[in-house]
Amino acid sequence: MLVVRSAGALRAARSESAAPVGFVPTMGYLHEGHLSLVHAARAECRMVVASIFVNPTQFAPGEDFERYPRDEPHDLALLEGAGVDLVFVPPVEELYSPGDTTRVTVSALSHMLEGARRPGHFDGVATVVAKLFHIVRPDRAYFGQKDAQQLAVIRHMTRDLLLPVTVVGCPTVREPDGLACSSRNVYLSAEQRAQAVALSGGLRAAEAAFAAGERDAEVLRRVARAPIEARPLASIDYLSLADAELLTEIQGRVTGPVLLSMAVAFGATHLLDNTTLRP
Amino acid sequence: MLVVRSAGALRAARSESAAPVGFVPTMGYLHEGHLSLVHAARAECRMVVASIFVNPTQFAPGEDFERYPRDEPHDLALLEGAGVDLVFVPPVEELYSPGDTTRVTVSALSHMLEGARRPGHFDGVATVVAKLFHIVRPDRAYFGQKDAQQLAVIRHMTRDLLLPVTVVGCPTVREPDGLACSSRNVYLSAEQRAQAVALSGGLRAAEAAFAAGERDAEVLRRVARAPIEARPLASIDYLSLADAELLTEIQGRVTGPVLLSMAVAFGATHLLDNTTLRP
Repeated sequence: MLVVRSAGALRAARSESAAPVGFVPTMGYLHEGHLSLVHAARAECRMVVASIFVNPTQFAPGEDFERYPRDEPHDLALLEGAGVDLVFVPPVEELYSPGDTTRVTVSALSHMLEGARRPGHFDGVATVVAKLFHIVRPDRAYFGQKDAQQLAVIRHMTRDLLLPVTVVGCPTVREPDGLACSSRNVYLSAEQRAQAVALSGGLRAAEAAFAAGERDAEVLRRVARAPIEARPLASIDYLSLADAELLTEIQGRVTGPVLLSMAVAFGATHLLDNTTLRP
Repeated sequence: MLVVRSAGALRAARSESAAPVGFVPTMGYLHEGHLSLVHAARAECRMVVASIFVNPTQFAPGEDFERYPRDEPHDLALLEGAGVDLVFVPPVEELYSPGDTTRVTVSALSHMLEGARRPGHFDGVATVVAKLFHIVRPDRAYFGQKDAQQLAVIRHMTRDLLLPVTVVGCPTVREPDGLACSSRNVYLSAEQRAQAVALSGGLRAAEAAFAAGERDAEVLRRVARAPIEARPLASIDYLSLADAELLTEIQGRVTGPVLLSMAVAFGATHLLDNTTLRP
């Protein structure tokens, strides 16, 4: 496994390889969710490239950019074990040169849900993914369904900007009790960790109601909220039932595929989870 | 010369060729300025690709998108004569699919000068050039110095987004009397056309003052304005002496390279011209 830290070195290593090239962009501090993306890429591609980059432009001032967990040696060992060929670990200056003010914005999908909670977040995401795509030139790129809105923004950007990349969404990987894997789970106290099972509990409750025929959007939201509201350490940032494509909130009856998604705070830690309901 | 109208056909034709690929994006209605870009590309590249696309997102409502001059058969004959290998003439739907809301913004350079006169203009320019770069994948791309701010925005975007393209600026081509070639010159009445020589007249007057040692920014602006203000049909939109890199207006003495640029209206027609002064 080759580790490179400059765009030039990445391009040189990339250009010698044969298609298809699979790409797994990450912010590091890897868990089973990331590794499932690598496994998917490894199964479908001749060359697998991963990146580790904690992207400053997707953090707002006061968020956890500085304290975001990092462990590069451990990450590299995991990536090597999973069969990655090439890892890109750029310093910030490699992706953002002085005076950089260029941003990519997917306005229709960036201002609700996580975008409302974190203004500018998805501009940072879309911008860094465009940059990484320009350097790596992947044929296929792998993202987790756990960050559903991020996946929608990246799909939309890739299509709109005519980037020749197939964006692949991969299922959320969960801990045995149902908690979605996330690098931020490490922030949780033992008590918070125990109560965090309520997110997936809310999703499973709504899925069960949906399977039993419930189609009223507000009832489904209420069913999903109940297990979370029962946990004293959990505070719901938002809980949304939205059109799965447009992310516009559903009023009345569910008739097409919908994304049930939520952000829930435990102290300063915000956890995400979601599921898609299909009539 | 091959003419293609879809991104897929362009990619197929492009991928068979050898590097370097030169690209000349245009809005058609070609003149000697465009052809000088093709000549530069032809001299430096193994394959030359041109595009003809009147990009709707760089026109504001009420501007001349609908009446912008078009003459595809004549354009194709000129491109063939100049030795272009491949021409991309996409319909609007090929570059903007339904629901497209992705925009590329180079905020530091987009809000002054032409950007102040035409809000959103450079977002449209940066966005369409990014799309075209993604489809054509040129090694080198050629733009006229006549649209100096556009050139600066595209250079900045290309650098910031790490697009592997060398952006080449080419000198402004002029009519015998000094008027910069522009597709919009066709809008001018005979009387307006005669008075339009005042733009280059202002630039030459300022260049002469600068060569004679004048370094006061306000004096240089006044010298450039005088020949234009003497023409009754001309109305100055702006006349700027700005840092050549940052496009910030110069106050006091000129110490580094500066861009002297202007937009001048003749009726509904806005003409641009500029020169760079280097101490």
